[in-house]
Amino acid sequence: MIRSTKPNAIVLLSGGVDSSTLLYQLAYEDYDVTALSVDYGQRHVRELAAAEAVAHRAGVPLMHTAVGRALAPLFAMANSSQVGRQVAVPFGHYAAETMKATIVPNRNMLLLSIAGALAEAIDARVIAYAAHAGDHPIYPDCRPEFYASLNEAFGHATEGRVALVAPFGRITKADIVARAHVLRVPLALTYSCYMGGEQHCGRCGTCVERREAFQLAGVDDPTRYEDVAR
Amino acid sequence: MIRSTKPNAIVLLSGGVDSSTLLYQLAYEDYDVTALSVDYGQRHVRELAAAEAVAHRAGVPLMHTAVGRALAPLFAMANSSQVGRQVAVPFGHYAAETMKATIVPNRNMLLLSIAGALAEAIDARVIAYAAHAGDHPIYPDCRPEFYASLNEAFGHATEGRVALVAPFGRITKADIVARAHVLRVPLALTYSCYMGGEQHCGRCGTCVERREAFQLAGVDDPTRYEDVAR
Repeated sequence: MIRSTKPNAIVLLSGGVDSSTLLYQLAYEDYDVTALSVDYGQRHVRELAAAEAVAHRAGVPLMHTAVGRALAPLFAMANSSQVGRQVAVPFGHYAAETMKATIVPNRNMLLLSIAGALAEAIDARVIAYAAHAGDHPIYPDCRPEFYASLNEAFGHATEGRVALVAPFGRITKADIVARAHVLRVPLALTYSCYMGGEQHCGRCGTCVERREAFQLAGVDDPTRYEDVAR
Repeated sequence: MIRSTKPNAIVLLSGGVDSSTLLYQLAYEDYDVTALSVDYGQRHVRELAAAEAVAHRAGVPLMHTAVGRALAPLFAMANSSQVGRQVAVPFGHYAAETMKATIVPNRNMLLLSIAGALAEAIDARVIAYAAHAGDHPIYPDCRPEFYASLNEAFGHATEGRVALVAPFGRITKADIVARAHVLRVPLALTYSCYMGGEQHCGRCGTCVERREAFQLAGVDDPTRYEDVAR
């Protein structure tokens, strides 16, 4: 069997604009890309469909794991236990497909750890995720100091075999959309609405952010929003 | 409701000597301890029974998640894919209770990430795992440079709320057995045999290591080994 001599990279692919663009960028940079979609209890059906469509268009294999289903009982236990404060837990209404996305505790470290396990299994040298500068104020696990230290941990855990990169860590979502345009990312296939409906609602936080990024980038937005008052 | 004022700690509990002793040590140090048992596809039935027995004796709640079941299809895909080399994957014969333990890729980062998610959910400040000096040559994810950098990543991800500690990181398994004796850990309840049988086989790598640790510590070994040629 003839094996590719390109370095393998795993891209965490949600099916949104950012991770889809990252997938195209790494393929453009001549990595042998494997996409990884992790269902951690989010609006998964619609997102997974988008991830599948993007990976298929890019000609990249997509791997998928529904780890949220396994962790749900743990968080249900945590939530109902006497230990510590009661918190909103993202896995509570896992079955509801219209469930709103919530913040999963320690989400990115968990997703990246799964990617790390897969990286070792398929001999990938790079794990890439699409944290960007616009995420920094809200999500500490999208900040450069987070992924720099996690990259160090990866280096030690794998004896230098696996590196973690966040190529969009210092640019904005508008910059990403501009880059997507150049890389001919099939943006109409991407999906990022909190509501999980077939079309983007156009009003939720991520839809507003998505619309704004296209406007700032001066790129035509192919998204069909339910709320047409653009 | 009256809430405890003790700091919460999560101890990763396999049911072996090391993690059971760590659980007792943290309880002794006056943490409000929650034990976390993660089934990543190992000889789980017997180990989980030991973890339950130890946690029950210590009067500590045990939480459990069978994440291996969720990840198994992912690794089966990785294994059968054209991407990269073929590797031995630990989840292949998950259902077989006599399955031999194998090295799970990126295991400790994955387990500790799950502990990190739980820590945020139950407001725990400390995650403790029982890496010890004897593990360093074989397992890079038991070395001080690994858990130091992962601790940094935890600090960044949780904005300082969660710390990772490995209190046995610089001592040997014999030191741990000696400490267990002082702390009155119910060592007869612990389990660490690779074979997954009801009793310890006495011959596998971990059984040999276990026996030796008791001998070096000068502590009477309460373990019943199938191989009685001690």
